[in-house]
Amino acid sequence: MELTVYLAGQIHDNWRDDMKQEAKKLDLPIHFVGPMENHDRSDNIGEEIKGKQPNAIFKDEAASEINNLRTQVLLNKSDVVIALFGEKYKQWNSAMDASTAIALQKPLILIRPESLHHPLKELSNKAQVVVESPEQALQALSYIFETN
Amino acid sequence: MELTVYLAGQIHDNWRDDMKQEAKKLDLPIHFVGPMENHDRSDNIGEEIKGKQPNAIFKDEAASEINNLRTQVLLNKSDVVIALFGEKYKQWNSAMDASTAIALQKPLILIRPESLHHPLKELSNKAQVVVESPEQALQALSYIFETN
Amino acid sequence: MELTVYLAGQIHDNWRDDMKQEAKKLDLPIHFVGPMENHDRSDNIGEEIKGKQPNAIFKDEAASEINNLRTQVLLNKSDVVIALFGEKYKQWNSAMDASTAIALQKPLILIRPESLHHPLKELSNKAQVVVESPEQALQALSYIFETN
Amino acid sequence: MELTVYLAGQIHDNWRDDMKQEAKKLDLPIHFVGPMENHDRSDNIGEEIKGKQPNAIFKDEAASEINNLRTQVLLNKSDVVIALFGEKYKQWNSAMDASTAIALQKPLILIRPESLHHPLKELSNKAQVVVESPEQALQALSYIFETN
Amino acid sequence: MELTVYLAGQIHDNWRDDMKQEAKKLDLPIHFVGPMENHDRSDNIGEEIKGKQPNAIFKDEAASEINNLRTQVLLNKSDVVIALFGEKYKQWNSAMDASTAIALQKPLILIRPESLHHPLKELSNKAQVVVESPEQALQALSYIFETN
Amino acid sequence: MELTVYLAGQIHDNWRDDMKQEAKKLDLPIHFVGPMENHDRSDNIGEEIKGKQPNAIFKDEAASEINNLRTQVLLNKSDVVIALFGEKYKQWNSAMDASTAIALQKPLILIRPESLHHPLKELSNKAQVVVESPEQALQALSYIFETN
Amino acid sequence: MELTVYLAGQIHDNWRDDMKQEAKKLDLPIHFVGPMENHDRSDNIGEEIKGKQPNAIFKDEAASEINNLRTQVLLNKSDVVIALFGEKYKQWNSAMDASTAIALQKPLILIRPESLHHPLKELSNKAQVVVESPEQALQALSYIFETN
Amino acid sequence: MELTVYLAGQIHDNWRDDMKQEAKKLDLPIHFVGPMENHDRSDNIGEEIKGKQPNAIFKDEAASEINNLRTQVLLNKSDVVIALFGEKYKQWNSAMDASTAIALQKPLILIRPESLHHPLKELSNKAQVVVESPEQALQALSYIFETN
Repeated sequence: MELTVYLAGQIHDNWRDDMKQEAKKLDLPIHFVGPMENHDRSDNIGEEIKGKQPNAIFKDEAASEINNLRTQVLLNKSDVVIALFGEKYKQWNSAMDASTAIALQKPLILIRPESLHHPLKELSNKAQVVVESPEQALQALSYIFETN
Repeated sequence: MELTVYLAGQIHDNWRDDMKQEAKKLDLPIHFVGPMENHDRSDNIGEEIKGKQPNAIFKDEAASEINNLRTQVLLNKSDVVIALFGEKYKQWNSAMDASTAIALQKPLILIRPESLHHPLKELSNKAQVVVESPEQALQALSYIFETN
Repeated sequence: MELTVYLAGQIHDNWRDDMKQEAKKLDLPIHFVGPMENHDRSDNIGEEIKGKQPNAIFKDEAASEINNLRTQVLLNKSDVVIALFGEKYKQWNSAMDASTAIALQKPLILIRPESLHHPLKELSNKAQVVVESPEQALQALSYIFETN
Repeated sequence: MELTVYLAGQIHDNWRDDMKQEAKKLDLPIHFVGPMENHDRSDNIGEEIKGKQPNAIFKDEAASEINNLRTQVLLNKSDVVIALFGEKYKQWNSAMDASTAIALQKPLILIRPESLHHPLKELSNKAQVVVESPEQALQALSYIFETN
Repeated sequence: MELTVYLAGQIHDNWRDDMKQEAKKLDLPIHFVGPMENHDRSDNIGEEIKGKQPNAIFKDEAASEINNLRTQVLLNKSDVVIALFGEKYKQWNSAMDASTAIALQKPLILIRPESLHHPLKELSNKAQVVVESPEQALQALSYIFETN
Repeated sequence: MELTVYLAGQIHDNWRDDMKQEAKKLDLPIHFVGPMENHDRSDNIGEEIKGKQPNAIFKDEAASEINNLRTQVLLNKSDVVIALFGEKYKQWNSAMDASTAIALQKPLILIRPESLHHPLKELSNKAQVVVESPEQALQALSYIFETN
Repeated sequence: MELTVYLAGQIHDNWRDDMKQEAKKLDLPIHFVGPMENHDRSDNIGEEIKGKQPNAIFKDEAASEINNLRTQVLLNKSDVVIALFGEKYKQWNSAMDASTAIALQKPLILIRPESLHHPLKELSNKAQVVVESPEQALQALSYIFETN
Repeated sequence: MELTVYLAGQIHDNWRDDMKQEAKKLDLPIHFVGPMENHDRSDNIGEEIKGKQPNAIFKDEAASEINNLRTQVLLNKSDVVIALFGEKYKQWNSAMDASTAIALQKPLILIRPESLHHPLKELSNKAQVVVESPEQALQALSYIFETN
C-alpha cells in the first residue's frame, strides 16, 4: 500500500525536500506532491500560457487558474494533506488547501509554531493532527505503516 | 423563496448590521446568520462551558470546539456564503469558512479590497463572485430575486 | 407538496410566462424560477456591480460571475429543470444548465423542435422527458400531481 | 502518477492526435481518451448494434445510447476534461461533457477562439482554465507535473 | 415533524387507500405519495403527451419517460419508501423503486406474503423492515412518532 | 431557524426530559427527537409487529429492524446529534449513533463523565464538542442562537 | 485501461461463459465478475457458514447475507453492470442489482427478449443501453475501446 | 482483483494473525490492515510525537489524534471491514469503526459470541454479515472469490 501526500504551505524554504529525504531514509512508501515551488513561475504561469493580461489583477487571476488546476488534480489524488504555516506571509492558500482537504474528508496534518495557535484555533480543531514540525508530521505518517 | 446567507469574516466593525439593514430596506427575503460577534465571548466560550483549561492553547482549543459547532450548523443551513477580508488580522477562519463553502458546493461571494488581490488570488479564482464592498455583495444577492 | 421548477433556455420570447399562466389555470402548486430574462441587464450586470472592465471579454466574465451565482442558487433549490432549445442562438448556457441538472440527479425535461433532434441526440438520451412544446412539458409536470 | 484526460469536442479535424503527439514528445505520463472520432460510425452505431430503427429520430436515439455509454465510462475514469469549441457546428455535446465534468468536480480546461467568448461566457466562468489552443491546454497539463 | 412516504408496488387493489385511512385514524402526520394508480392512464401517458409512437415498444418507452419523471420527483421528496409485493405480476418496477430507495439511503419497508420469501431473499436482506401486511408497515411507521 | 436535535444514549433516567424543559425555559427553537425510551417496548417491538420469533436472537433481530427504522428516519432529519455515555451498560447503540452522525457530517456533542475518557478517547477526538453534563450540551446549543 | 464488468442475472445457463470467451477472442481488456453461479451453493451458503437455521426463511436470510456481501463488494469495483432478464423466474435480484447500479451512477446495459419490454419498460428507460442478446452487449462494450 | 480488509476490534490476542495465516493458506488475494496492535504504543503515541501533555485526558486526546489518522487513512483504502467483539472491554472503538464503515457504504462483517447478541442487536442488524468466529468471517471473504 502506497500513500499519496499533498504538501500545502509556503514555498520559501526547503521543508518539502527535508520531508522527502527523511521519508526515503525510513523507506516509507509515500509519494509526495504539492504546489509549484518556483515562486516566480507560480506568479507568472498565467501570462506565460495565456499571454499578457490587462493589469496586475488579471495577471493574478490568470496565474491562479493554472495553479488551482494543479492543486485540484493533485489534491484529488491524495490520501493525506499536510499544511505548514509559518510566521510570515498571509498564507490564505494554505488555509484554503487545508480546509478543502477537510471538507473532502481527507485527513489533515497541520504543522504550525505554537505561537500561531490562537489565530489557527478553529482550523486546528478541524485538523486530524496538529504538530509543530515536519519531523513530527512524518512520525505520524510513519505510524500508519507500523506493524508489530 | 427565502435564502439563508452566512456572513463569514472579521467581527471588529458593523459590516453585518449594515448588510442586514440594507437588505431590509430592499425587502429581500434573506435570513442572515454568522459567527459570534462578541470577540471576548468567542474567545472565552470554551472555558465558560467546559471550565478552566490547563493553559492558553487548551483554552483556545475548547473555544474552537464550540465556535466550530456553531459554524458547522449554520453553514449547513446556508444557501450562499459571503466572506469579507480586510487589511488587518490573519483571518484564517475566514479562509476556512470560504473554502468549506466552496467544497460543499455552496456559492461564495468574496469581499476584499483590491489591495489584497495577490495573496487572495487562488481563493478569488474559486469564489463565484469577487467584489470590494458589502454593498456590491448585496447587489449580487438582490439580482437573484429580480423578476422582469 | 410544492415543486420548484427551473426554466432554462433562451430569453427572447414569452414561453416562461405562458407556462406560468397555464400552471396557474390548472392550479398546480409549482414555483417557477429561472435566469434573468432582461437581456441587456444580463449582459451588463457584471459592470453594473463590479464597475468598468478592461475589455469586452472581461465584461463578459464579470457578468457571468453574477449570472452563474443566480443560476447555482436557484438550481440548487429546484426539484425539476426544464430546458427549452430553439432554432436560433448557440444556447450553450441551456446545454450547461441541462447537463448540470442531470449530473446533480435532478430530472430534466427537454423541449426542442423535432428538427433539432440530431444535434441534441446525446442530451436527449440523458433527459428524463423529451417533448416539443412547453404545453407538453406542463402536462408532464401536471401528471406528477394527479391522483385518482 | 499518471493522469487520464478526456478530450471532448468536435471530431472533424486532428486536434486530438496533435495533442497526443505533443504529450509524447514531452514525455508526459498522460493517457488520453475521448469519443468515437469516426463520424459515420458514431451516427450509425445504434443501428449497427440494435438493428434498423423506425425513423431518423429513433436511429439517433439508438446511437446516443451507445455513445453515451462510452462517454460515461471514460469520463468516470478521467482526472481532467478538456473541451474544445470551434466556430462551426452546434457542439451541444461538447457543452454537455464540459458541464458534466464540472458537476462531477473534475477540473475542466476549455479551449475556444476568442471570438466565441460571449456565447460561452457562463461556461468559461465555470471552467478551471480557459485557453485558445490545444498547445496552451497541454502547457497547463504539463505544469501539473513540473518539479523544481 | 411530518414524514413523506412513497408507496411503491402494484396498482391493482386498494392497499394504498387502506393505509391512508388507517394513518388518518391514528392521526399520524404522514403525507403519502406514489405512482399513477390508474393503470390505463399509466400505460398511455406517453402517447397522450408525446403523440402516437411507431409501435408498442416505443409506446412503452414514451410512457416510462413520464412515469419515471413522477417517481423520481416523488421519491426524492420521501423520507421512507414502502414496497408491496404480491403473488401476481412481474413487479420489476417495485423491485426497482425499492432498490433505488436503498441505494439513496432511504429506509425501505418491504411488504410481502411469506410465500415469496425465497425469490425476495436478497432484497429482504437489504430492506430495513420486512413485514407481511400494510397494517404491520403502518405500525412500524407509527412507532417512529411514539413518545412516552 | 429551528434546529432538530437527536438525543442518543441510555434510556434509564430522565436526562432527555431535563434537557427539553431547560430548552423550553430558555425559549430555544429546538425540536428534540430520540429513540423509544420505554425499554420493554423497545425490546418487544419486533414481536409485537412481526409476531413470535423462533428464539431470543431472532426476537432481538426483529426488534432492531424497527428500532433502526426509527433511528434512521429521525437521524436523517437532525441538524445536531447529542450522545450521552454513562458508567453502566455497554452502550454500543450510543457509539453507533454517534459514529453515524459523524460519518454523515452532522456535528456530534458527546456527554460523558470524565472517568470514561480513556475508553472513549477516539470517539471524543471525532466529536465536535465533548462535555460532562446535559447542561453543558444545552449551553453549546444555546450558543448557536446567540446574537449580540 | 481495463474495465471491470458485473454480470447480473439468472445463473441457469452459460451466457456468462459465452461473453467471457467472446471478449477473449476480441482481446478486450475486460475483467468480468458476478454472483455465485452454483445454484445450490448460493442457496446453502448461509447454513454452510453460519450453521443450521430455525426454518426455511431464516435459512434464506442467512444465505442472502453472504450473497449480498459478494455482490456489494464486486459491484463497488465495477465500471459497468450488465443485467440479463429471461422469460423464466422472478429475477427480482437482477432488478435489484440493475437498479443499484443506476443509483450508484454506474452505466447499465440491459439484455432482455423483446417480449419482456412491457414489464421492464421503466427499468429499460433508466438503463443506458437496452439490447436483446449478450452479443450485442459485448459489441457495446467493445465500442468503448475502439480507436480510429 | 485484490481486496483490502480492515480488521477492527480488540488488540489483546492474535486473532488477526490467525486470519492472515488462514488467508495465506487459501491463497486469497487479500491485503489486511488494522489498528496499532501494540497496546502501549497506541496509548503513548500522542506524547511520543507531540510531547508531554498536561494530564491523562490530554494525553489520551493526543494519542487519539494519531490513532484516528491511521484508522481514517486505512479505512478509506478498504473494501470490507471486519469488526470483532469479545466479552471484555468497552470496545467503543470497535463500534465506532464498524458504524463508520456502514455509513461509508463499505460492507461490514461482525464477529461476536452469541452471548453478546442483545447489546449488539442494532449494530448486528446494520452489519452485512454476522458470525461468531474469525474462521466464519474468512469463509465469507473466500466466497467472494469463488468461481465455478
